Amino acid sequence: MTQDVPQLVAQAREGRPRAVARLISLVEGASPQLREVMAALAPLAGRAYVVGITGSPGVGKSTSTSALVSAYRRAGKRVAVLAVDPSSPFSGGALLGDRVRMSEHASDPGVYIRSMATRGHLGGLAWAAPQAIRVLDAAGCDVIVVETVGVGQSEVEIASQADTSVVLLAPGMGDGIQAAKAGILEIGDVYVVNKADRDGADATVRELNHMLGLGEARGPGDWRPPIVRTVAARGEGIDEVVEALEKHRAWMEEHGILAGRRTARAAHEVETIAVTALRTRIADLHGNRRLAALAERVVAGDLDPYAAADELVAGLTEA
Amino acid sequence: MTQDVPQLVAQAREGRPRAVARLISLVEGASPQLREVMAALAPLAGRAYVVGITGSPGVGKSTSTSALVSAYRRAGKRVAVLAVDPSSPFSGGALLGDRVRMSEHASDPGVYIRSMATRGHLGGLAWAAPQAIRVLDAAGCDVIVVETVGVGQSEVEIASQADTSVVLLAPGMGDGIQAAKAGILEIGDVYVVNKADRDGADATVRELNHMLGLGEARGPGDWRPPIVRTVAARGEGIDEVVEALEKHRAWMEEHGILAGRRTARAAHEVETIAVTALRTRIADLHGNRRLAALAERVVAGDLDPYAAADELVAGLTEA
Repeated sequence: MTQDVPQLVAQAREGRPRAVARLISLVEGASPQLREVMAALAPLAGRAYVVGITGSPGVGKSTSTSALVSAYRRAGKRVAVLAVDPSSPFSGGALLGDRVRMSEHASDPGVYIRSMATRGHLGGLAWAAPQAIRVLDAAGCDVIVVETVGVGQSEVEIASQADTSVVLLAPGMGDGIQAAKAGILEIGDVYVVNKADRDGADATVRELNHMLGLGEARGPGDWRPPIVRTVAARGEGIDEVVEALEKHRAWMEEHGILAGRRTARAAHEVETIAVTALRTRIADLHGNRRLAALAERVVAGDLDPYAAADELVAGLTEA
Repeated sequence: MTQDVPQLVAQAREGRPRAVARLISLVEGASPQLREVMAALAPLAGRAYVVGITGSPGVGKSTSTSALVSAYRRAGKRVAVLAVDPSSPFSGGALLGDRVRMSEHASDPGVYIRSMATRGHLGGLAWAAPQAIRVLDAAGCDVIVVETVGVGQSEVEIASQADTSVVLLAPGMGDGIQAAKAGILEIGDVYVVNKADRDGADATVRELNHMLGLGEARGPGDWRPPIVRTVAARGEGIDEVVEALEKHRAWMEEHGILAGRRTARAAHEVETIAVTALRTRIADLHGNRRLAALAERVVAGDLDPYAAADELVAGLTEA
């Protein structure tokens, strides 16, 4: 169905959730109208503060996100949540307790909650998430919280491209090790040890301190990622998280780092769109038969995959 | 360091683990010698049976993988494990019990265990995993078990490209829902409910049956994914899993489906290599300054990301 894009954009600007929802659906569906949408949004975006929250399943990402939303709402901010975590209650399959916490925000017109379902799409999450963020940004959200599970490669990458990345841990044997292996310990600007009332919280903070090498000497202007303790289910420590986020944002602005991060994020977005376009062109130009014929020769052992890729690329740039 | 590729390949063919390890390191490091490696391996690969195992964290993937390896070893097969699961003990950070189970295989020359660490690489897991499988295949492994966590987008995709995909679940509230949301319920050729001695196993099997719509009418030649109950920690049900795998393999061969799957896998591999090459060319041609300049205009709102991507692609195909 063709949408009236200028009207949708105008309505999204007014904060109408249905217009925002339709625009994001155009992103998820890789609509042919997306170019028109993105051209209309271009002058409007760039104002929101994008916070990534990631961590292993079970550390309390959704509860923390919800508490963070409450804190920002108390400060009068318009907030959006983009959940790309398949285990998140924000993505639809909540346990009862989570649903209750969510429904509190669901009735608040200053909060927009959206889950991403982009499985199987050509460019995947790397393609869709930044464009969905752009829609929420242009719609006038002050803060956009992007919640991703800290396990998958694409998911960790998305979290790492926020203005500020929050890495969530919880006490428990081996949790720090798992986080380290998943590569999420490298991306945090702020670390949160949630469920800090449980046994082992001190050990987790110590372990985290050790892994982050916080004892090492740093330059005077360097950012030292703080470790904040929370009990998100009771809202404890959330104000300290917000404070840490604001400090990081101020530090980035002071050192000209925020603009650099946003340029890097846009560069990644542009590159992903370009690569997806090239991929589509590979499929269109040759039909899939050309690729299938090359693949059959690879399976038969007549051709190695690099030589086959060379043939594909050559066909593309000739055209 | 330049490697003597023909010698490495010859040694890998003899099953020398250090040669296999070096070849996979060339893959992981995106070595310039990779073309030479893949050209040398091309005529040798295509014999191994590739089994993907995926499931949410905590369902017992590693224990099941280990038990499966034991079963195939008893049948005299050479087996490789490729672990792309950051939470897997095969990837290095095992709890004690898992280390013990692993070390049993570590001393067995008929078993090759390798974890993938490809974070941050240009093409990522989608690029590296199929090439690592190709190395293990050419090295003469009869069975290659690819263990991935069923959470991330790239990880689920890898599991779905095996000859046979095993989806692992365990009793527990919401587990089936989480699996469904992660998209892994759609990719299973064989379903395994592990920890079947626990409460709720019957409910999980029922729920799974329901979700899979096994009651629906199917064509007489269709594959009906079986649901196998296991207690992997005690080796119970593992023979039944092997039997289900062999049935699926026989069914695929009978219906000409195995060749089709392998062609699809090779096509995906070729396409990923081609796209990665194009991406590298984008970076090389323009230097990153061109992309950065476009990204800055996107951040400033002067250009939308699609128009920027058009400029990138135009520059690429002109050259």
